[in-house]
Amino acid sequence: MGKIGENSQREKIILGLDPGTSVMGYGLIAVAGQQLKLLQFGVIHLSKYTQHELKLKKIFERVLSLIDDYHPDEVALEAPFYGKNVQSMLKLGRAQGVAMAAALSREIPITEYAPKKVKQSVTSNGNASKEQVAAMLMTLLSFQESPRLLDATDALAVAVCHHFQQGSAKSSVKSWKAFVSENPGRMR
Amino acid sequence: MGKIGENSQREKIILGLDPGTSVMGYGLIAVAGQQLKLLQFGVIHLSKYTQHELKLKKIFERVLSLIDDYHPDEVALEAPFYGKNVQSMLKLGRAQGVAMAAALSREIPITEYAPKKVKQSVTSNGNASKEQVAAMLMTLLSFQESPRLLDATDALAVAVCHHFQQGSAKSSVKSWKAFVSENPGRMR
Repeated sequence: MGKIGENSQREKIILGLDPGTSVMGYGLIAVAGQQLKLLQFGVIHLSKYTQHELKLKKIFERVLSLIDDYHPDEVALEAPFYGKNVQSMLKLGRAQGVAMAAALSREIPITEYAPKKVKQSVTSNGNASKEQVAAMLMTLLSFQESPRLLDATDALAVAVCHHFQQGSAKSSVKSWKAFVSENPGRMR
Repeated sequence: MGKIGENSQREKIILGLDPGTSVMGYGLIAVAGQQLKLLQFGVIHLSKYTQHELKLKKIFERVLSLIDDYHPDEVALEAPFYGKNVQSMLKLGRAQGVAMAAALSREIPITEYAPKKVKQSVTSNGNASKEQVAAMLMTLLSFQESPRLLDATDALAVAVCHHFQQGSAKSSVKSWKAFVSENPGRMR
């Protein structure tokens, strides 16, 4: 397999974000082939900032510093498309917009996923609870989850979801690798 | 008046923004004392970009290039707080958030004004039409308005509104200048 295998297994870093107006979750994973590795996850508490613009400034700065610390290749965003009322959706939209702008300012591609899609992708159940999502992530990424970080696991889940979605889209690459390893005599 | 007058009349540049999801208006004014000067105004058409993230990227890039070209000291944002439905408010919130992030990334303070407040401030009538606002701006800033730029005049209006709001807040400075010019004998 040699270089073909190495090349397709180049490590890729995905930053998952779950922006909200009181808490923003983030999760970073490294992907090498089908191997997933947890890099970092956590939450940014925003409720302590009473001024709305200050919250947005913090989101922008923290997302930018995550990008500059970990150099993710792609950003995946958990983005609810429905909400209680127009006021809360405007605020949520601003939080999402600011987080997206941080990625755009570093020319990093963004993909959005609806919460149901994330749960479906990670647990095969679009109605899974936060605890079920966390339990599956613990298995996939081999870590002991701390209950206070349940908000962060949503962000980690969207990063994992993004990897799974790309994996299925890139099935032709996997097939080619499989073809090479199954047919060594056909390669020079 | 000498140095006191010169100092308080240092030119200040205000960038007014009216971010929307199909068109974003912008207007730049220079303020020296009570003198207003039109620098630039226009619209960024976004409806040609069908992909939502591309629209946001364009807003971010264009606001950033306006900032880097004109170095505004302050940004004023026309921000509606109510809308038709949650979907449109989420999109509007994202457009606002991305425009705000461009200003935040350059450490420029942002002030928001509701549309009614802008109209009230510029024309003394909170229910003024776009045409009435444009007519008042033409007088204040001495320019011939082109009808196709009505979207841009909203952005210009929020910049002028911001100046007026600050002017009233800084009335103590004006009074001091008035006191000096009216009482030259009291100054050494």
